[in-house]
Amino acid sequence: MALIVQKFGGSSVEGVDRIKNVASRVGTYRLRGDKVVTVVSAMRGVTDNLVKLAAEITPMPNDREMDMLLATGEQTTIALLAMALHSLDLPAVSLTGAQAGIVTDGVHSKAKINNITPGQIHAMLDKGNVVIVAGFQGQTSDGRITTLGRGGSDLTAIALASVLKADLCQIYTDVDGVYTADPRVVPNARKLNEISYDEMMELASLGTKVMQSRSVEFAKKFNVKFEVRSSLNNNPGTMVMEETESMEAVVVRGVSLDSNQAKMTVTAVPDKPGHAARVFTALAEAAVNVDMIVQNVSHGTATPATDISFTADAPDLPRARQVIADLKDEIGYASVEGDETIAKVSVVGVGMRTHPGVAAKVFETLGIANINIGMISTSEIKISVVVEASQGEEATRVLHEAFFGDDKEG
Amino acid sequence: MALIVQKFGGSSVEGVDRIKNVASRVGTYRLRGDKVVTVVSAMRGVTDNLVKLAAEITPMPNDREMDMLLATGEQTTIALLAMALHSLDLPAVSLTGAQAGIVTDGVHSKAKINNITPGQIHAMLDKGNVVIVAGFQGQTSDGRITTLGRGGSDLTAIALASVLKADLCQIYTDVDGVYTADPRVVPNARKLNEISYDEMMELASLGTKVMQSRSVEFAKKFNVKFEVRSSLNNNPGTMVMEETESMEAVVVRGVSLDSNQAKMTVTAVPDKPGHAARVFTALAEAAVNVDMIVQNVSHGTATPATDISFTADAPDLPRARQVIADLKDEIGYASVEGDETIAKVSVVGVGMRTHPGVAAKVFETLGIANINIGMISTSEIKISVVVEASQGEEATRVLHEAFFGDDKEG
Repeated sequence: MALIVQKFGGSSVEGVDRIKNVASRVGTYRLRGDKVVTVVSAMRGVTDNLVKLAAEITPMPNDREMDMLLATGEQTTIALLAMALHSLDLPAVSLTGAQAGIVTDGVHSKAKINNITPGQIHAMLDKGNVVIVAGFQGQTSDGRITTLGRGGSDLTAIALASVLKADLCQIYTDVDGVYTADPRVVPNARKLNEISYDEMMELASLGTKVMQSRSVEFAKKFNVKFEVRSSLNNNPGTMVMEETESMEAVVVRGVSLDSNQAKMTVTAVPDKPGHAARVFTALAEAAVNVDMIVQNVSHGTATPATDISFTADAPDLPRARQVIADLKDEIGYASVEGDETIAKVSVVGVGMRTHPGVAAKVFETLGIANINIGMISTSEIKISVVVEASQGEEATRVLHEAFFGDDKEG
Repeated sequence: MALIVQKFGGSSVEGVDRIKNVASRVGTYRLRGDKVVTVVSAMRGVTDNLVKLAAEITPMPNDREMDMLLATGEQTTIALLAMALHSLDLPAVSLTGAQAGIVTDGVHSKAKINNITPGQIHAMLDKGNVVIVAGFQGQTSDGRITTLGRGGSDLTAIALASVLKADLCQIYTDVDGVYTADPRVVPNARKLNEISYDEMMELASLGTKVMQSRSVEFAKKFNVKFEVRSSLNNNPGTMVMEETESMEAVVVRGVSLDSNQAKMTVTAVPDKPGHAARVFTALAEAAVNVDMIVQNVSHGTATPATDISFTADAPDLPRARQVIADLKDEIGYASVEGDETIAKVSVVGVGMRTHPGVAAKVFETLGIANINIGMISTSEIKISVVVEASQGEEATRVLHEAFFGDDKEG
């Protein structure tokens, strides 16, 4: 008999039939004697509709009231899932985030979990119930309803698994697990049996949309091993866990493509100390998440000057452009150029720490394929390159072939 | 500066535009310096949709989970109304029933309010906020979400007015107040300025759909004076209050028509002690709300026997029929006859206590109009008669004319 925390996202509970499906899956575990805590999101589309409703009232809804409004989404799902379990003759009770004892800070719309008092959950599990908890939400210590922001339901599940000392934490989604590459881009990509938190975080922040890196970071911090698996079949998924020694034997865990990046270049910035810092401080204040930075000597200027290029999420480009425009008088530069036709391709693997030569292999592979590298950035376990958007998929394929082509263990 | 509790029902908050209307009405009071607590229901249609959704999951949804589900309806409205007040630059916060300190018993789907701890409400009023409370809901002392059943939002408002010692309690609805008769039946019916709790309860239980009698009963118990008025205009409404001496001067307060009644007759019940009691006990156990009872000697039976007739709500007729059928062997009777073509017309007024002759005037008036009386029932402040359904409206009109025709003060 194990204690299992399961999380089902919005697409897994979209509509009555899928809720019934989830109920029978949950029931399988309960019937074999496990204690089950199930975390669910709002049905897909529900949150968007609530946001739209609020927007019809006011363009700038108050965060506290927005949380009050959005929290109804998961509350609806938990009640319906409990009913679905009842109709299978399984005892089940639903709990809102607040009732489950999830206490957060007061930052509405992106609250952090401060602590969890799982007394209610334990009491209800002990009575034989499946306990269904509303994901994505909690309450402050003075009783305000809060929401945890994007990926919040994953966070709820991982935090509950930690505090309940669960034997197993399963994150159900609409993919079979984490792959060596996006199967839509690389048809022979294969599912990983395991991956370390650090690799998963790099992949999460690189555009692989299985999970938010924030939840993985939380899991790493509290050492919660979890499985990413599909709610549509019974295939085993991918275990996300602390790095093991055997993981280092594998040089590259996966190849990731992020086409949602843009590049900006500020040309002929006078070469004075502090100018570059001024630019990136202003961007940070405007919450533009800058990724790679490259600085080059400008050509054809009378006084020494540099061209500063950086990449950021494409939707942030207009905001970044405004920030730079506002700095024109202060620092003086020639022009600002934006380029949304870029893609970022990354290879990730904890094995890189102990296996030199990965960067060389990346550059060589892309060179042979005639793919030009625009920018480069590296971390201990990651090498990212910027290429022409039109060549992003090809770059992903050739790199995947180079590192996984002869079916090395991924 | 007054403390005002206002309640807006589902039709008053149906859709974004009406919510904005409510906000500006609430704002008017707030801007003149009043402290305002606003109780709202779910938007019209929302609760029905949630019930439908639950029915798709299971035909017999669990009461606890049903309350969890339905409570989202009001929670949605309070958040949206708070946002609408913000967009008028008015400070406002929303509170669920639980957050507002409304503690109920554990009878899900028709919980009773045990007590209210208004600490949060006071704290938020003191900060200048309009406090918006979800009607119809509360929580048990051990933290389960409950709902109060039909008319629950009225109950929330009246209970809050009581515990907050409000100067004024306003129940906004889609009619201008309580009338001497239904204006759709009696075009020259007029709005009452005031009515006693007892009269209002008789009218509420007689099919006048302004409020549930349960809420009026609660108001009477805690002596909460309240005003029924329209959310669509600024006309003063009807004050519902303790009986005053001047009220007794008026003989009849109103004439009410209830077309939703049915009559059943059980013929030739052997005239033995306890048989009638047996019938009505069984009906009560089946939750058939019996209203009038008439017992007559049967004709043409060998041994002494009686015909027992009674009226009940028309939707209860099939259940009543089943109850009587189940008793056939036990008590023995000839036949059961159901009649849905009846209407009940009532005249109500506390003045009847001190003014004899009202019954005579009722019978005389109906006699002149050639309207046959099927059954009669009276209380201290009410006379009800059953007539043919086809004559119900005519009976209402002639009685209204008899008591109000020369525009006596109502």
